[in-house]
Amino acid sequence: MNDAQAGNPTAAILIIGNEILSGRTQDVNVQFIAQRLAALGIRLQEVRVVPDIAARIIGAVNELRAAYTMLFTTGGIGPTHDDITSECIAAAFGVPWELHEETDQEMKAHMGERYNEARQRMATMPRGAVPIKNEASIAPGFTMGNVHVMAGVPRIMQSMMKTLEATLPRGEAIQMRAVHGMGVMEGGIAAGLEAIQEAFPQLDLGSYPFKRDGGWGVALVAKGTDLPAIEAAIIQATELIRAQGVEPVQGEPG
Amino acid sequence: MNDAQAGNPTAAILIIGNEILSGRTQDVNVQFIAQRLAALGIRLQEVRVVPDIAARIIGAVNELRAAYTMLFTTGGIGPTHDDITSECIAAAFGVPWELHEETDQEMKAHMGERYNEARQRMATMPRGAVPIKNEASIAPGFTMGNVHVMAGVPRIMQSMMKTLEATLPRGEAIQMRAVHGMGVMEGGIAAGLEAIQEAFPQLDLGSYPFKRDGGWGVALVAKGTDLPAIEAAIIQATELIRAQGVEPVQGEPG
Repeated sequence: MNDAQAGNPTAAILIIGNEILSGRTQDVNVQFIAQRLAALGIRLQEVRVVPDIAARIIGAVNELRAAYTMLFTTGGIGPTHDDITSECIAAAFGVPWELHEETDQEMKAHMGERYNEARQRMATMPRGAVPIKNEASIAPGFTMGNVHVMAGVPRIMQSMMKTLEATLPRGEAIQMRAVHGMGVMEGGIAAGLEAIQEAFPQLDLGSYPFKRDGGWGVALVAKGTDLPAIEAAIIQATELIRAQGVEPVQGEPG
Repeated sequence: MNDAQAGNPTAAILIIGNEILSGRTQDVNVQFIAQRLAALGIRLQEVRVVPDIAARIIGAVNELRAAYTMLFTTGGIGPTHDDITSECIAAAFGVPWELHEETDQEMKAHMGERYNEARQRMATMPRGAVPIKNEASIAPGFTMGNVHVMAGVPRIMQSMMKTLEATLPRGEAIQMRAVHGMGVMEGGIAAGLEAIQEAFPQLDLGSYPFKRDGGWGVALVAKGTDLPAIEAAIIQATELIRAQGVEPVQGEPG
């Protein structure tokens, strides 16, 4: 994260989820959203996971929506008693939490007799919210100011994200290239890698050890918006690996 | 998260990782640590992911170590230029960052001529830190006050966590039981589930939709330290599913 990307819009993700904090569920939403944001040129700057406790949700929403261009939340918008995200967004913005008439009509038409009090909670939103319609669920997410409120179920979140993307401000796409080598040790290339970072201050150079087939290797990753610089940095990183007596392989270790 | 667990120690996790925020890497450390903490009776209350930027790391460390009984960090303790966690912990505590003599000797003895300046960074710690030795790496993590600083590579982090566990304060183990049913809709059981939650205020009752073999189901999860109450709540949740005309299945959907 450096000055060369400083003009790009920024974002945070807030995961509302006891099930992540208890270890019950492996989160997969962060990586999906992160990859989509990178493609849109939006810099993801922070992720938080908080429990289903109103004060915690409201506090985090207000901190993060003030600190970044936009905030994405996942989780807590279903019909059950532990789904309190929507009320909390209303409280964070200091607006009433009220039935969204159009959504109410659509859900009633779709669900008929099954449209009960619990389900009507999913048509209730902060005043001023704009629904995020999606192909995966009749119940929408919603956008309130710069906060995009999405489901926690990955399939539904992904569908909401697809709808949202057309509406988001964009920056220069953040690109990434990698080269890796088996048997390379980070300690042996650290000085050389730092020199490459200094030669390309507009990029982020990262070094990531990995284990494969019982042996260790290192992946070197160049990231930024300046693709020619990324490619030049990867050529130097490739030479750095070769100088260790290792045959470099382009791309991620996979 | 409720009052019945209020006596248990609390924890947060801070992930220092551009590679998570860029979408390059799928985090798997949170779930591992979360499950170990639950077994030890430690309530994980927050997770944050921040980039490899000193001010962001120092700020998050100081907020989280003040707010919870203990803080675990992962990432940023290798030998390369983007590994700045250790210096940041020293800055957060306002103490010098200096060579840890015993670790320096051990790494020198182990690595011989390969022990260069970059690797010596891994023997450099905040003054007063206690190394976290481990089976996966000669370079240790360290504990500074209530902050446990671990590697980001899952295999090494897990080995450090194993060492740490003997030293952590414990609470009553947090237990979890589940029952699930295919074809159950959250909206159909929300009122019944809320009634069970009200009958067992010492527990957290959660409801989690899942998709399997092309159809949707719901898992109902009871969590807390009171095992007889958990089992009684799951019996009621089982009846709730059966009342929907669905055959309940004990446990997680797997």
